[in-house]
Amino acid sequence: MTTVPAAPIPDPQPPEVAEVTTIACVGIGTIGGGWAAYFLSRGYRVQAWDPSPEAGDRVRALIDAAWPALTQLGLAEGADPHAISVHTDLAEALDGAQFVQESAPEVLEMKQQLLADIDAHAAPGVIIASSTSGYSMTEMAVDAASPERLVVGHPFNPPYLIPLVEVVGGEQTSPAAVAWVSAWYEHLGKSVITMDHEVPGFIANRLQEALWREALHMVDNGEATVEQIDRSITDGPGLRWPLQGPMLTFHLAGGPGGMAHMLDHFGPSLKSPWTRLEAPELTEELRGAVVAGCDDEADGRTVPELVAQRDQAIIAVRQVIEQLRRGSAA
Amino acid sequence: MTTVPAAPIPDPQPPEVAEVTTIACVGIGTIGGGWAAYFLSRGYRVQAWDPSPEAGDRVRALIDAAWPALTQLGLAEGADPHAISVHTDLAEALDGAQFVQESAPEVLEMKQQLLADIDAHAAPGVIIASSTSGYSMTEMAVDAASPERLVVGHPFNPPYLIPLVEVVGGEQTSPAAVAWVSAWYEHLGKSVITMDHEVPGFIANRLQEALWREALHMVDNGEATVEQIDRSITDGPGLRWPLQGPMLTFHLAGGPGGMAHMLDHFGPSLKSPWTRLEAPELTEELRGAVVAGCDDEADGRTVPELVAQRDQAIIAVRQVIEQLRRGSAA
Repeated sequence: MTTVPAAPIPDPQPPEVAEVTTIACVGIGTIGGGWAAYFLSRGYRVQAWDPSPEAGDRVRALIDAAWPALTQLGLAEGADPHAISVHTDLAEALDGAQFVQESAPEVLEMKQQLLADIDAHAAPGVIIASSTSGYSMTEMAVDAASPERLVVGHPFNPPYLIPLVEVVGGEQTSPAAVAWVSAWYEHLGKSVITMDHEVPGFIANRLQEALWREALHMVDNGEATVEQIDRSITDGPGLRWPLQGPMLTFHLAGGPGGMAHMLDHFGPSLKSPWTRLEAPELTEELRGAVVAGCDDEADGRTVPELVAQRDQAIIAVRQVIEQLRRGSAA
Repeated sequence: MTTVPAAPIPDPQPPEVAEVTTIACVGIGTIGGGWAAYFLSRGYRVQAWDPSPEAGDRVRALIDAAWPALTQLGLAEGADPHAISVHTDLAEALDGAQFVQESAPEVLEMKQQLLADIDAHAAPGVIIASSTSGYSMTEMAVDAASPERLVVGHPFNPPYLIPLVEVVGGEQTSPAAVAWVSAWYEHLGKSVITMDHEVPGFIANRLQEALWREALHMVDNGEATVEQIDRSITDGPGLRWPLQGPMLTFHLAGGPGGMAHMLDHFGPSLKSPWTRLEAPELTEELRGAVVAGCDDEADGRTVPELVAQRDQAIIAVRQVIEQLRRGSAA
């Protein structure tokens, strides 16, 4: 028996990140339109494609609604909310574009066809990113001639305000394309998480989904109301999470001993029936990975220093939220 | 066969909420000390009990560290950070107290013994709340002579900054005691969730725990690093959660059709392998409860209005967090 060696994945050789001036947005609903608003705010020219005859008016309204927020966060020099053209012809929208962001509806067959069409029309070397939240690029790229340049770039809603973008390639994606698109989003000011391999739901949505399913079970069983679930987050752990994520939060819960103390002390509670999700075995290896990860994140800051930073953040966040609530009630 | 009727639960007849001036804090570690700082900031006198000889110095340091934050959030008239006495004799700490907050370590036998002792020494009618995060009052109250006045009042760390308190009684707790302690915490300015029945982990910790376990699985399987998990929350959904909880977040994701549209459209994704936690069946009843709950929370605000409020909150939260990060890096 002989093994056929896999063909090497070609490097698409994209343009320099800093040389990009024109972006194609394929699909300009809530997500694609949000991307368009963001790209405009960063000073790029946008060529949009959307089959709907109302797409132009809708994206205009979306950009106009988003612009004050984008201005508040700071526009790039020369940013122009009108530097966008809307096309119903795909080749026209892709003409001259040096990067493509696809944000079509979450229908696999549609994504497969559209990515193949984009690939057929985009200039050689141009990277094509998909906003998909539900599919892997391995599934979506099956009909494309150059899957090496197709990458997932999954934003969060609204893409012009939430910094997170999750980047991951498919089996046929070139590592150079993954690296390029990560560098590109970072150049745009995004907070980029580059994943090594495809995981359904990526990272943030997996975590959100676990919480959401537990919440649905609680409503289903009469254990909590919708309002109680929401308030348990907004007035509880939700106040800590904009500064410190769930891991670092528990690092602080361990006191001066940090995550190591926390796991040794509260490890047994992993077996408590506090959620319907079964916990992994707390092996030495897992313990070590979590402790080392928290130490990396703490980056020399002691637990008391992190606590002081958390407390300042909670106060500041509470104050801005209370101001906004008073304002909207007035 | 005859059924022995359960003895009626007596009403403990606590004092008027507004008449409370003196509080006993039993156990003054991180949680109990945090409660003490909060009670002092609200203008109460605190009598603390702790068996550790260092407890007095530790709680002094904790209160002094917390006081600037409490001052920033606004002190009650006459609030005095020194209006606290620390005792090693339990009866002395309870003498004259009109409310008791127990915050001993999470060891069931210790809690059972301590709650029985508190119950034996506290004046009649005084309500006794436990900060437990892990036990039900039904389990903890077994040795107490008057379980009708024992209630769980579960805070979040740090109790002087996070508004949430979860309140739930045990099988022998008087509904009047549950109502009293809810009214009392609200009087103190807390955000109170009163649960109808005991659920392991209460609400916020169940939700947190589902997310935490999914995160541990991801680390265990090499699907994400600790840093990626934290950043996926801080730079992603964590920015939305201080204003709008997970339910209302998805209400907005449904567009103008809100949660109803969201469930009808994305309901099938409940079956996607986006977390290891199995989803409940999306029955008409569950759908109805979730949609009605979101409508109640929206309280007449349209989805575009909620979106505008969310966007303002994200901008404000991002700005304060970025300011704090720049400040701590300086």
